[in-house]
Amino acid sequence: MTNERAAPPTISEVAAEAGVGRSTAARTLGGYGYVSPEVRERVLAAAERIGYRTNALARSMSTGVTHTIGVIVADIANPFFGGVVRGISDASRTRGFDTLVLSTYEKLAEEIAATDVLIDKRVDGMIIASAALDPASADHILQARSRGIPVILVDRVVRGLHLDAVVIDNRTASREAVARLIAAGHRRVGFVWGPPLAERPSRRRDFIDVAARNLSTDGERLQGYLDALDDEGIAFDPELVMVGPKDEERAEAEATRMLGLADAPTAMFCTETDAVTGTLRAIRAAGLHVGSDVSLIGFDDSSWAAVMEPPLTMIEQPMLALGERAAEALLEMIDGGADSVRVHTLETRLIERASVQPPPAARA
Amino acid sequence: MTNERAAPPTISEVAAEAGVGRSTAARTLGGYGYVSPEVRERVLAAAERIGYRTNALARSMSTGVTHTIGVIVADIANPFFGGVVRGISDASRTRGFDTLVLSTYEKLAEEIAATDVLIDKRVDGMIIASAALDPASADHILQARSRGIPVILVDRVVRGLHLDAVVIDNRTASREAVARLIAAGHRRVGFVWGPPLAERPSRRRDFIDVAARNLSTDGERLQGYLDALDDEGIAFDPELVMVGPKDEERAEAEATRMLGLADAPTAMFCTETDAVTGTLRAIRAAGLHVGSDVSLIGFDDSSWAAVMEPPLTMIEQPMLALGERAAEALLEMIDGGADSVRVHTLETRLIERASVQPPPAARA
Repeated sequence: MTNERAAPPTISEVAAEAGVGRSTAARTLGGYGYVSPEVRERVLAAAERIGYRTNALARSMSTGVTHTIGVIVADIANPFFGGVVRGISDASRTRGFDTLVLSTYEKLAEEIAATDVLIDKRVDGMIIASAALDPASADHILQARSRGIPVILVDRVVRGLHLDAVVIDNRTASREAVARLIAAGHRRVGFVWGPPLAERPSRRRDFIDVAARNLSTDGERLQGYLDALDDEGIAFDPELVMVGPKDEERAEAEATRMLGLADAPTAMFCTETDAVTGTLRAIRAAGLHVGSDVSLIGFDDSSWAAVMEPPLTMIEQPMLALGERAAEALLEMIDGGADSVRVHTLETRLIERASVQPPPAARA
Repeated sequence: MTNERAAPPTISEVAAEAGVGRSTAARTLGGYGYVSPEVRERVLAAAERIGYRTNALARSMSTGVTHTIGVIVADIANPFFGGVVRGISDASRTRGFDTLVLSTYEKLAEEIAATDVLIDKRVDGMIIASAALDPASADHILQARSRGIPVILVDRVVRGLHLDAVVIDNRTASREAVARLIAAGHRRVGFVWGPPLAERPSRRRDFIDVAARNLSTDGERLQGYLDALDDEGIAFDPELVMVGPKDEERAEAEATRMLGLADAPTAMFCTETDAVTGTLRAIRAAGLHVGSDVSLIGFDDSSWAAVMEPPLTMIEQPMLALGERAAEALLEMIDGGADSVRVHTLETRLIERASVQPPPAARA
C-alpha cells in the first residue's frame, strides 16, 4: 500500500494514470472549470491509487485562506496556557482550522517576532495572550489588524486598546477570595505576587498606580485584593505585598519575610501556582501548618491542590472555555461577522476546601 | 505608523513607490535574477515604507520548504506534553522553523486525520507521540515517510516499526523505582495503572503479553515492575495491579480495593500524575498516611509533589530535553543527514524525598 518514492506524485502522473490530458486532471484536482462526472470520477480514483494529494499551499495561494490560526501565549508548558491552547485547538478543528502555537516567555520582543512569523505564514487570524502593557508597546498587534488579520486577545487585555478579548474577571475573583479570608476572621492577609515591583512603595496610591501600569491580570488581582480590604475597612499594609521577580523562590522568600513580621499575616492569598507552592514551602519552613496556623487561597486549581493536606481552597479558571470562546470569536471575525469590539468575560469559581480556617487568635 | 488598509500592499504598489518596473520589484523581493545594488536598496526601502511583506506561501511554493514542523501529541493540556512541545518549539525556532501542534487524545483515528492535515500543509517534518500499538495501525506514519517526509517518534516507540525516536527508558526507570521500594523493606507493592486491562488476567505470563501489546510506555513500566519483583524473588500477585480505564477515579477505586486486601500492599508505584493523585485520595480515605503507613513513588515530578506532606519521591522525566532532542534529530533529517534509524534514550532521575519509608511491620 505504501508508495516508496521520495517525491510526491505530480498532476501529470495522475493524468497518465487516468488516461486523460494534464489540463483535465488539473481542472479536476483543482476543483475549477468543467469536467464530466465520469472523467472526474476516473481522475479522483487515479489520484487515490497513486497517492496524489492536493497541495494546501497551492490552494491557499488561490483562495487566500490558509485555514490556520496563529496562537501566541506566554508559555505552552504552563498548564494554564496548555488548557487554553487545547480549547482553541479543539474549537478550531471542528471548523477545519489548525493552530500554529508560539511561546514568548512574557518577552515583548519575542511577541513581536512571533506576530511577524504569523503574518508571514498568512494565518487567517491570531489569538494572543499579550505581554504588551500599553498601546505604545502593542504596535505589532495594530499592524496585524491593519492588514485585515482578525485578532482576539486572551487571558489579558492591553489597557487603552480597544480589541476583542476573552478574559476572566480577575479583580472580582480576587476580591471574592480575599473577602472569604476576611469573613473567616483574618485582618492580616499576605499578597503573594502580582505586579513585579523592584522596590516596595510606601503609599497605597502607589500600589494602585503600579497595578494600573502592569500586566492586566497582575494589576487586577492586586486591585481586587485592595478592594476587599477597603470593603471591610481594613488598613492596607505595604509590608504584606510581595516585591521582586515572579518566581517560586522569591515567593518563598517573601512569604517567609511576612511570616516573620511582628504582626505576621494569618492568611495568604497567592495569585499563581508557583506563588502557592513557594508560600507552602515558607509556611512549612516556619514550622506552621496550612489552615490551623495560616489560611491560604490560591489561583489555578489542579488535581494536586485537591490532594494536599489539608486540601486547598482554590480559584478555578475556565481554561478550556477561555480557549474555545476565543476560537469561536475569532472564527466569527474571519467569517466577516462581529464588526463591533467585544470583551467576553468568563466566570471563575472559588472551590472551597479546608485551607481556610479562623485565625489562631480567634480560635484561642 | 500603522497601515489602515485592509488588503496588504502588492508588488505593483512597491514598484510604483520605488519608481521601478513591476518585474524589477518582483526580482528584488523574490531574491532571483539580477538587480543592481542601488535599485535593490531603493525597492527594499519602498517595501519597508508601505509595509509590503514577502509572502511565505509564495516562497514555499517555489522552494518547497515551509519551515514548519508538525507535532502530534496525546494532549497539549497535559503538562508532560506541554513540556515536550515547548522543547520542540524552542529548538525549532532557533533554526527558523515553526510548529503546528495537534492533539489526538490517544485516539488513532484523530492521529490519522492529524497526519493528513500535516501532509496537506506540506510540513517539512513531523514529530509524533503515536497511539499506534503495532505496524498495522501505523500505516499513516509509513505513508508520510514514503512521501519523503521525515518523522521522529517521541515519548513512545511503535513496536515492530523501525523509526527514529526520542524516548526515555521506561522499563529501567520503573525497575529502579520499585527496587527502591523493595530495598526499603516492601514485599507487597501496588501498581497503579499501566496497560488498560478490561479484566484481570490470572497468570504472570498474561500480564507480560498484555505489556507487549500495549502503548510502549505503559507496557515498559509494567515490565519494569515485574523485573524488580523478579530481581528480588518476590512472587507476582495479579491483585496488586490496577485494571480498568486510566483515569484518576479508577486509580482511586483500584488503590482503595488494594488497600482493603487482607494482605494489603505497604507501598504503591504510580505511573502517571493522575495515578498519583487518585492513589493519594485512596490512602487518605482509608485513614492512612503516606510514608508512615503506605510508601509511594510516582511518575512525573512537579513543583506540587515537592510541597506535599510528606514531599513525594518521584521520577523526573526530561520533558524539555525530549522535545529539544526530537526537534534536533528531525532538523538533521530535514537537512538530509541521518540515513540510519536511531533511537535516542534520555535519562530519567529518581528524586528521593520522604514518601518512601520502611513498611509499618518492619518499624514495629
